Amino acid sequence: MQEVAGNGLLDRRLFLKTGFGIGAATLLAPVVMKNLEAAPEAAPVNTASPPWMHTPGAGYSTYGMPSKFEDDVVRFPSANSAIPGNGVSWTPLHLLEGTITPNGLHYERHHNGVPQINPSQHRLLIHGLVKNPSFFSIENLLRYPLRSRICFVECGGNSNAGWNKSPIRSEAGYFHGLVSCSEWTGIPLPVLLDEVKPTKKAHWLIAEGADAFAMQMSIPLEKAMDDAMLALYQNGERIRPENGYPLRLILPGWEGVMNVKWLRRLKLTDCPVMARNETSRYTELLPDGKARMFTMVMQAKSLITSPSANMLLREAGLYQITGLAWSGRGKITRVDVTADGGNTWAEAELQEPVLSKSFTRFRIPWQWNGSPATLQSRATDESGYVQPQRKDLVAERGRHGFFHYNAIVSWQIDEFGSVSHVYDKDEIAESSDPVDIDAGWD
Amino acid sequence: MQEVAGNGLLDRRLFLKTGFGIGAATLLAPVVMKNLEAAPEAAPVNTASPPWMHTPGAGYSTYGMPSKFEDDVVRFPSANSAIPGNGVSWTPLHLLEGTITPNGLHYERHHNGVPQINPSQHRLLIHGLVKNPSFFSIENLLRYPLRSRICFVECGGNSNAGWNKSPIRSEAGYFHGLVSCSEWTGIPLPVLLDEVKPTKKAHWLIAEGADAFAMQMSIPLEKAMDDAMLALYQNGERIRPENGYPLRLILPGWEGVMNVKWLRRLKLTDCPVMARNETSRYTELLPDGKARMFTMVMQAKSLITSPSANMLLREAGLYQITGLAWSGRGKITRVDVTADGGNTWAEAELQEPVLSKSFTRFRIPWQWNGSPATLQSRATDESGYVQPQRKDLVAERGRHGFFHYNAIVSWQIDEFGSVSHVYDKDEIAESSDPVDIDAGWD
Repeated sequence: MQEVAGNGLLDRRLFLKTGFGIGAATLLAPVVMKNLEAAPEAAPVNTASPPWMHTPGAGYSTYGMPSKFEDDVVRFPSANSAIPGNGVSWTPLHLLEGTITPNGLHYERHHNGVPQINPSQHRLLIHGLVKNPSFFSIENLLRYPLRSRICFVECGGNSNAGWNKSPIRSEAGYFHGLVSCSEWTGIPLPVLLDEVKPTKKAHWLIAEGADAFAMQMSIPLEKAMDDAMLALYQNGERIRPENGYPLRLILPGWEGVMNVKWLRRLKLTDCPVMARNETSRYTELLPDGKARMFTMVMQAKSLITSPSANMLLREAGLYQITGLAWSGRGKITRVDVTADGGNTWAEAELQEPVLSKSFTRFRIPWQWNGSPATLQSRATDESGYVQPQRKDLVAERGRHGFFHYNAIVSWQIDEFGSVSHVYDKDEIAESSDPVDIDAGWD
Repeated sequence: MQEVAGNGLLDRRLFLKTGFGIGAATLLAPVVMKNLEAAPEAAPVNTASPPWMHTPGAGYSTYGMPSKFEDDVVRFPSANSAIPGNGVSWTPLHLLEGTITPNGLHYERHHNGVPQINPSQHRLLIHGLVKNPSFFSIENLLRYPLRSRICFVECGGNSNAGWNKSPIRSEAGYFHGLVSCSEWTGIPLPVLLDEVKPTKKAHWLIAEGADAFAMQMSIPLEKAMDDAMLALYQNGERIRPENGYPLRLILPGWEGVMNVKWLRRLKLTDCPVMARNETSRYTELLPDGKARMFTMVMQAKSLITSPSANMLLREAGLYQITGLAWSGRGKITRVDVTADGGNTWAEAELQEPVLSKSFTRFRIPWQWNGSPATLQSRATDESGYVQPQRKDLVAERGRHGFFHYNAIVSWQIDEFGSVSHVYDKDEIAESSDPVDIDAGWD
C-alpha cells in the first residue's frame, strides 16, 4: 500500500475495490470515544443463541425511536441563562454517518424559545411594495406546487470557538455542529411572489418569525427569486417545531438566521430593515474599523468527523478518515486531506451523489504508524473557493469575529492515540492579539 | 393552459417556470383528508400577533419530536393476533412528501417482534464454505470502511390487497406503504467476504437474524458481491431497533424479507437453505401449477399519493398530482399519468436527483373540471420494464398471489371530489375467478 501523501495517507480508491483481494480490511484499527474509560470488554463469543432469540420481541409502534443503547447520541444544548430560550443545541456530527441529519438531531438556534404554533391559526402575510397584499393559511399553502431539495442549513455562528485564542476541547459536533442537512419540501417562493406582484421599487423582503423574539431578517429579492423556498416538510414529514413548524423560509446555502423559522410575514421594501440581527449581531468589526455586514453566503468548509477530538485510536494501523464538506456557493469539487499538518495533501473520495449546497461525505484511508500526527481537511467548491487556513482567516477578519468561522480544522493525535483539537503552528497568526469570544448567544 | 392529455392534464413544466408570470397558482384547489368532517374553519384573519409571540417558547431538547398537531401522521400497525409480534406497520405515504422516509415512520415487518439487542453482546458469524470463518463484534465492524447510499426497502407483500376481488378502502400508505426510502451507511459486503475467503463451491449465503423467529433467507453470492451492504446507520443515525439494530443486511432493490434485520450469521453454502420464507411463504402458485419462487427483485411500481384514496377535492380547479415511483432494477426513467382512466397519458416531471433503486418523486399539474375522473400513474425503469395493468398482472400470475403486486393503481374521483380506490373496467381480468386474500401475515 503505497503512500499518496506523507505520514500514511493512501489512495482514496483503496476501499472501493470489490472482489476478493483487498486483503487490507483486517488491518483496520478501532476509533472510540475517549470517555469510554477502557475498551468495552468484548463478551466471550457465545455460539449459542442470545437471550433475545428466546422470547418474542417488542410490538409495533406508531412512531419509532432510537435504541436505548444509543441514548448518548443527542443534541448538546448550550443556552444563555439570562434570556429564556436563547441559545443553541449542537448536532453530534462526530457520532453520525452519511449526509442526512435525522430530524430529531437537527441543530437548534432560538432567540426566545420554540413557539407551539397551532397551524390552523397560523397565517403568512405578504405585503409592502406589492400590488396584491395577501394572507395565506397553511391549508392554502398546501395547495401550491411543491418541490424538494436536499441542502444544509448552517448557523452564522457555527464554529465560533475557532476565534478563541486557545483551542476549544469539545467534540467535533459540539464545536462545528450548528449545521445539519435535510431534504426540504416546499413552495418555490417565486410562485407566491408572482401572485402578490412586487412593484418595481421592491428590492428586499423583510421576513418575520412568529416566535416571541419576532425575528426579522432582510432578504434580497434576487435570492428570493433564485432558489428560495417556503418549506413545509423536512425529511418527508412536516417540519419539526424547533425547525420552524409549520412554515420555514429556506435560502439554500445562506446563513441559518436568514432561514426564518415560524415564518409569518414577508414585507417587500426598497431597503433592508437593519434589524438587530443584521446590525449589532451577525455583523463584525474588521481590522480596518469597518463593519462586515450582510454576510449571507456560507463559504466552503470541511471537517473530519472521525477520528476527531476526544476520540482514541487504540493501536497503530489502517483507518478510514471520514468527514463532511459543504459550500453555500454550490457543489464541493474536492476535499484534500493531510496527515502531516499540511506539508503534503492527498485527495479524498467524495460520496456520490454530490449535490449543490448540501453535505458531501468524504473518505480516505490512512495508515497510522503510531507516532504523533496532525490531520486536516480542506474543501474546494465549484466557484474555485478554497477553505482558508486559520492564520489567513484571522489576518483578514481580525480578532473581533464571532461569525462565519470556516478555517481548516486540525486534529492532533498523540503517541497514545488520543485525539485533540489544536491550532497547528502554521495556523496561529503571530501578529494577532488573540482574545476569547465572550459574547455568547443572545 | 393547453392540455397535454385528456381530462385536464397539463404540461409538467408549468410549475417549473419562475419569474413573474405564472399566474396560475391562485387557481390551485385544496386536497384534504375525507375524515375531516367539514372544512376546518379558517380562523378570522387577525393582523395582531398570535399568543405564542407573547411568551417565551419551549426550551431545547436533546432529541426532537414532531408537533403535537401532527399526531395523526403515524404508522398503521396490522398485526397477526395469533402470533406475538407477527405482522406489519404501514408508512403513511399519503401524508408524506419528498423522497426520504423519516426513521420514526419507516415501515415495519416482523415475524416475532423487535428484539432489544445489546450491541456489545451482538456478534456476526461468517462461516460455512469459507477458509477463515470469523466472528465480528459491532465494535469490529465500526472499524471497517463505510459507504452510503439512498435506496428503498419494500416488503414482498406490499400492496397485496391488490389481489383482492374488491378494491380495498384504505388510504394509499395503508395499502402500499410497506416501502420506505432511507440513506443507509454500512460496510460493502465484499470487503468482509474477502476476509473470510469463500471457497469455489460457495454460491449462496444463508443470512440469519437474531430475533425470536430466527429469520433465515438465502442470498445468491453474486448479489452479495454486487451491491450488498452491512448497514449500521440509517438517515445519519444508528439503525432503529425495528429496522434491525445494530446490523442489517441491505440488498438494494431486492424484496424486504431478504434484507435480514438483526443480522447475526452469514453461512456460505452451495445451495439455498429452502427456509420457510422462501418456500411456503414469499412463493406463489402460478396458473400452470408451478411455484414462483426466489422472486428477489422488486419490479418497477408507482403510486399517486395526492390526490389519493379517502381524500377530498373541495372544488374544481388546478391541482398538483404527485406520487412516488421506484424500481429494483435501477433508475426510474419516466412516469406517465392519465386522468381519463388510461385513454391518454402525459409524462410527469421527475424530481432530481433521480437515484438508482430509490424513491423518485413525480409531479404533474391537472385541471379538474368537476366531473368524475380516474387517475393512474405508470412507471418505466432503465431496464425498459413498464409497470403492468392489473388485468395483465392477474392473467400472468393467477389468483393465488399474495406477493409482488405492482400493478397500476386507479383512484376515482366522483362529482363531489371524493377519491376512492377502484378497479378500472380495463383492470379486471374477466376470465379470472377472483378470491380474496385471506392468508394474512404470518
